Parts: sequence; structure tokens; C-alpha cells
Amino acid sequence: RIDGDRLWDSLMEMAKIGPGVAGGNNRQTLTDSDAEGRALFKAWCDDAGLSMGVDQMGTMFMMREGTDPDALPVYVGSHLDTQPTGGKYDGVLGVLGALEAVRSMNDLGIRTKHPICVVNWTNEEGARFAPAMMASGVFAGQFTMDYAYGRTDLEGKRFGDELERIGWKGEEEVGARKMHAYYELHIEQGPILEAEQKDIGVVTHCQGLWWLEFTLTGKEAHTGSTPMAMRVNAGLAMARILEMVQEVAMAAQPGAVGGVGQMQFSPNSRNVLPGTVVFTVDIRSPDQAKLDGMRAEIEKRAATICDEIGVGCAVEAVGHFDPVTFAPELVGNVRKAAEELGYSHMNLISGAGHDACWAAKVAPATMVMCPCVGGLSHNEAEEISKDWATAGAEVLFRAVLETAEI
Amino acid sequence: RIDGDRLWDSLMEMAKIGPGVAGGNNRQTLTDSDAEGRALFKAWCDDAGLSMGVDQMGTMFMMREGTDPDALPVYVGSHLDTQPTGGKYDGVLGVLGALEAVRSMNDLGIRTKHPICVVNWTNEEGARFAPAMMASGVFAGQFTMDYAYGRTDLEGKRFGDELERIGWKGEEEVGARKMHAYYELHIEQGPILEAEQKDIGVVTHCQGLWWLEFTLTGKEAHTGSTPMAMRVNAGLAMARILEMVQEVAMAAQPGAVGGVGQMQFSPNSRNVLPGTVVFTVDIRSPDQAKLDGMRAEIEKRAATICDEIGVGCAVEAVGHFDPVTFAPELVGNVRKAAEELGYSHMNLISGAGHDACWAAKVAPATMVMCPCVGGLSHNEAEEISKDWATAGAEVLFRAVLETAEI
Ligand SMILES: NC(=O)NCCC(=O)O
Ligand SMILES: NC(=O)NCCC(=O)O
Repeated sequence: RIDGDRLWDSLMEMAKIGPGVAGGNNRQTLTDSDAEGRALFKAWCDDAGLSMGVDQMGTMFMMREGTDPDALPVYVGSHLDTQPTGGKYDGVLGVLGALEAVRSMNDLGIRTKHPICVVNWTNEEGARFAPAMMASGVFAGQFTMDYAYGRTDLEGKRFGDELERIGWKGEEEVGARKMHAYYELHIEQGPILEAEQKDIGVVTHCQGLWWLEFTLTGKEAHTGSTPMAMRVNAGLAMARILEMVQEVAMAAQPGAVGGVGQMQFSPNSRNVLPGTVVFTVDIRSPDQAKLDGMRAEIEKRAATICDEIGVGCAVEAVGHFDPVTFAPELVGNVRKAAEELGYSHMNLISGAGHDACWAAKVAPATMVMCPCVGGLSHNEAEEISKDWATAGAEVLFRAVLETAEI
Repeated sequence: RIDGDRLWDSLMEMAKIGPGVAGGNNRQTLTDSDAEGRALFKAWCDDAGLSMGVDQMGTMFMMREGTDPDALPVYVGSHLDTQPTGGKYDGVLGVLGALEAVRSMNDLGIRTKHPICVVNWTNEEGARFAPAMMASGVFAGQFTMDYAYGRTDLEGKRFGDELERIGWKGEEEVGARKMHAYYELHIEQGPILEAEQKDIGVVTHCQGLWWLEFTLTGKEAHTGSTPMAMRVNAGLAMARILEMVQEVAMAAQPGAVGGVGQMQFSPNSRNVLPGTVVFTVDIRSPDQAKLDGMRAEIEKRAATICDEIGVGCAVEAVGHFDPVTFAPELVGNVRKAAEELGYSHMNLISGAGHDACWAAKVAPATMVMCPCVGGLSHNEAEEISKDWATAGAEVLFRAVLETAEI
């Protein structure tokens, strides 16, 4: 069995790095805080006797040797980066849960046939640089490293430059490693487990996503002296598109969501009608046809809205993954582990995207989920109990051992 | 007669300071560029033999003596600050047109009974610090200096600190000066004069304004894993309010406008539903009852919209002026000057707010307007012709002489 107190202490220790403003964390990818968090994690891995590899995307691979020199490693991990106003558990639980599994193997003198590799993927959140799950995406051949390096944050800083700046650009070719399997523990980030009073989510699928970045081009003009009839108001077009996205998502119920998180007016002055409005629509569904249908409808209706107002409308897909079906054998291992440990459980479709979704492209993969209070995540008030964390890590530990073979 | 070439050269010279990105200017108030613009203006005033006074709001008063020691000065001016993506003429024409009037008096050996004071008011635009027309507002007793000093920009910098930083906080008590009259030349910033092919706008009124800053409080949550029914989406409430403002403004036609120029999502991350959305509604009308009616309707309907979504809604008025009626005698002087000089002219209601609106609270005041291409302003592409500028400055010169008495 794993040590729930040690896991919790490590979570609390990591949460001291890149503190937020309301009890959570701001440890965005490739910031100084990210570097600090990586260094702490590395120190812990050193203590646990793991050897480090870092790839050219900055992903950290911390290896525990297996007994069979020919056996491919079982990868277990998640991410240490957070949202600008993120919680203490989103991602971190998966990395430190994997570390706790390895620590427990050390304590118990367990040797596995397959090596175990604890992973901290770079830029899972996609908050600072779109898309999300960026390093695992490059690893799985979904986008090129050049594309990733060229992505910019709101200040115009490039991913590649920032990776170098914080000193975590490794030498290893991205995606060169072969995986026997991939497991990821994560908080649900949604309300279902808590509502159903289940300890463990057995994650069978992950819903697909489109991030559609709209650039609306109106005409900068004085808010006071420009008659209503002469306005080319990109802000008005934006408002109509937001309402339409809500309508499309509601019509696609159940099994779909849609919303807007990022918004930029330019020049963003009270008495200037915006010349440009840039915002990102986030739509998701576990149903591929529904997801792509929503995208098509949103783009078509947005074009009509903009035409009516005379506003220019450009759409770029800055993030995408198809719905994912996780490996049945691994899913079975998670279910069996929960059963054997006496935890209540249920099947789940992940509402959020995870590195496991990209890993699933190159290896059998699945996830373990634990509840979070009120389903709240991407919020500094994100909360879980020590019991939930412990149960999740126990199940992870046992499922990994099943695959890694004692 | 004034020297149109000299005026134009000065305009082009000033436009070199704080250049924009598209041929216009970014010389926002209390920036280093503002300080540079002030220094150039002061050098020109020194050359013209004017003596400087600076008040505690940083407003520059450049005095040309009169022949009667007891006669109050005639104030003539506008502002040198610009929008972040502003034009070369908005405000600048009024300050340099006033300087050109004084330069011409010098050239022609004209002495006036009343002193002439050329004014550069601080922070007319209100782009960096709301409200607009801030220094003239304090001068006219509309808000306190403490209030003005405490206003912050989007980076949280205080007006008072920035005024000190650029070295333009004067000693003079704000509003201590008494005015015999106030004249201001400005580009129309709207389409009417050009459409009607008139050289000169005789400004009889200015429409009133409310700036309503909305702070909508939703619940930060994951865009993917938060079911539609659980969302407390401040972005959606914002969209509905924007559409409603458009509806209210359209229903109030003719003689009213409404729009939104400034918008801030927080935390502004693609996969986080915004916890807070802050934006400013700008509504205007020359009709006091209509203006206040629009405000009441917008606040009431916004509250209903927010209630329906469960979003918190706070509204703060961060800018306001009532509709203004300019002094008939001065308006008559402007009309007479245009007539005598053979310029075509028409009566205008100013769509934008101006320092003249606050000056009108403490002295007889009015404005002279010239056309601008396509009615475009608050846009780097703002344009006027040298002929239009010359005509405006000629009329200003003659009207000022009428009031200052030769
Ligand atoms: N788990 C998580 O929040 N990932 C970020 C990518 C997403 O928006 O789903
Ligand atoms: N003239 C001008 O653009 N003034 C700024 C204040 C306003 O928004 O009307």
C-alpha cells in the first residue's frame, strides 16, 4: 500500500511554489515558478533513485529500472504546470501520485519486470501557449516541434525561447521513447464522482475538443461621435457569436459543451469601438460527429453574423483532439484494482483533455480519476480530500504493478 | 490671417512624438511620450514669448499678456494626449491652432485687452485613466484632485504617481484661475461636416455621456469538464448585455449612441470560464432625459440578465457629463468669423466630449470644428486636409480676437 500522508505532504510542498492569490497556484508553463517546481520534483526523484531524461520539449522522464533489459517501460505521469489561477491538484496529483507509487515500490522492495517511468509533461494546460497537452502532442507526432516552438503567449514570447530561458530544453529526441503502456491519475475536474459518491472514476473515454480562435476585424472609431449606422462594431459581432455558441452547445445536449475563456479587445479603450476582437471558442463532445457538426455550425453562423455587421471574420483552429477510447485491458486493470481495494467506482468519460489522450496514440493508455469538491477545477478554490487522493494513488499503484509485472 | 503652413508643420512635428503603429500616434497621458510632447510645446511657447503656469493636475497654461491689467484672460486650447491608437489631430489641432493664433498676433503686432492663455489640459482622452477630460473636470470642480490622483490604469499605476514621475506636477491650485471665456478648436470626429460639405462646424451643444463600468462575477471553472447546467458564465452575461446595449441605443434613435470599447476577462485562459468580466458601456445623447433613461434601462435589464444566469453584477459610473449648451455670444462670434472669412458653416452638436464641456461650467465657452475624412477618429488613420485645419484656425483666431478685444 502507498503512503497517503507522504503523498499529501508532497502535494502541499509543491503548492508552495508559484502560489496564487486565493489559495491555489499560478505556476504556468516555462515561468520561473515552473523551473522551481521542476527542480523540487527532480530532487525528490533523485532521492527515490530515479535517473532523468529530458527531451527537446522539456518533458521530464524519471526512470526506475526493471528486471528485464528488453522490456519497454510503463509510463506514469501528468503535469506540474498550472493555470494562471489554478488549483493545487490538477496535474500535480498525477505526477506526485506516480512518484508515490515508485517510492512505495522502493519501501516495499518491489522490483518490476518493466521499468517504470514517472513523467512530467511540459505545457499541459495550454493557458500560456496554445494548444494544451503540447509536449505529449509533439511526442505522439500530432504536431511538429517547430510548430510548438513558434507558439507565442499574450506578450508575444515564443515557447522555444522560454523553454531555453528556464534551462529545461533537453537533448533527447521527442517521441523517440517507446512505451509499453501509459497510466495517468487526475482529479475529475467535474461533478459526477462526488454526486454519485464514488471513490474512483474508471476512465473509458475522453471527449474531443476544438479550440477555434476568432479574429474579428471591425473599424476603430469614436464611441461618441460615430453614428450607429456608420459603426463596424467587432464587439457586437463577438457578443452575437458568444450567444450563438451557447445556443449550439445547449442544442447539442446531452454530451457537449461550449464556451469562451479568452478575450482580447484592441485597442481596448473605453471610447474606441474595437478595431479587432480576438477570442477562443472551446467546444467539446465525446461524439466525433457531434463535435465536428458543432464546429461547422458555429463557423457558418459566425460568418453570417459578421457579414450582417460588415465585420471581417477569420477562424484558426489552435487546438484539437478527437474523442479518445482508452485501452480496454488497462481500463480493466484500473477497475480490478478498485474492486480489490474495496473502493466504489464507476465508468467515466473525461470532460477535460489530458496527456493520456495523446499517449493513447502511441501506446495502450488509460486514466484513474478521483473526485474534486463541487466539480470545481481551473479555479484556485479547487479542492480534494486526502482520502480521495490516497484512494486514487492506491488504484494507480496497483494497476501499474499489474502492467509492469512483479 | 494665420499661417496655415506653419500650423501644419507644427502638427507634423508633434506627430513624430509617440508614433503609433499605423501612421497615427500613441502618446497616452503621463507616458514618457506625453512628457516629450509637452517639452516641445513649451519650447514653441517660449519662442512665442508666452509665460508658463502649471497646475497640480499638470495642465499647462501659456500666457500672452494683455493691455488691461484688470482684464481676465481668454483661454484657448485642447489636449496633446492621444488614444493608444489615436490620430495626429484629435486635441493637437486645438492646442497648436491656439498657438498659431498667438504666433499670428505676434507677427501682426496685435495686442489684446484681455490676456490670451493657450492651454494643454492633462488626460483629456481618458484612455489610460478614466474619466476623460479629467484635468478640466477637476478645474471646473466636477471631481476632486484626490479622486483624480487615485485613478489607476490597467497595470494598476496611479494617476498621481505617474504625473509626478514624468515631472509635470505643478504647484498651482487647480481651478484658481478665472476665465473671461474659453474657446476650443477640434476636428469633428464624426461624418456630418464632410457629408454636408461645410468648412466649419459652429458648435452649439455637446451631447452628454455615461461610462458604466460593469463587473460581472461568475465562477471560474473548466470549459471542458463543467456541464452546461453547472456554469455560472460571466462571459455569456456580458454577451447578452452587449447585445442589449445595442438594442437600447438603436431604440433611442435618432440622437443617441451606445457601445463597449474596453473589456477584460479574468483569468483570460482558453479553458477557463471567466470568473470576472469587466467592461465599460459608453452611452451618449444630447437629450438629458433620454440619456438618463438609457442608463436606467441598461442597468435594469443587465440586472435581469445576470440574475437569470446567476452572475453577480456591479455597476460603477466611471465617467459622466450632462449635455452642454455653449455660450450663445461666443457661438455667435464663431458664426460671424466664419461668415466674414467666407467659409461655409453649419451648427453642430458635438458627439464627443471635450474640455470645453467642463470649461463651460466656469466660463462662457464654445468650440470650432473642422471636418475629418470619413468621420473617422480614435483611429490612427484619422485624417484632415491642410485647408480644413487652416480654415478652423482662422475662425478660431478671429473669434478669439473678438472676445479678447484689440
Ligand atoms: N486537464 C486539463 O485541465 N487539461 C487542460 C486541457 C483542457 O482544456 O482540457
Ligand atoms: N474628443 C474626444 O475624443 N474626447 C474624449 C472623450 C470622449 O470620449 O468623448
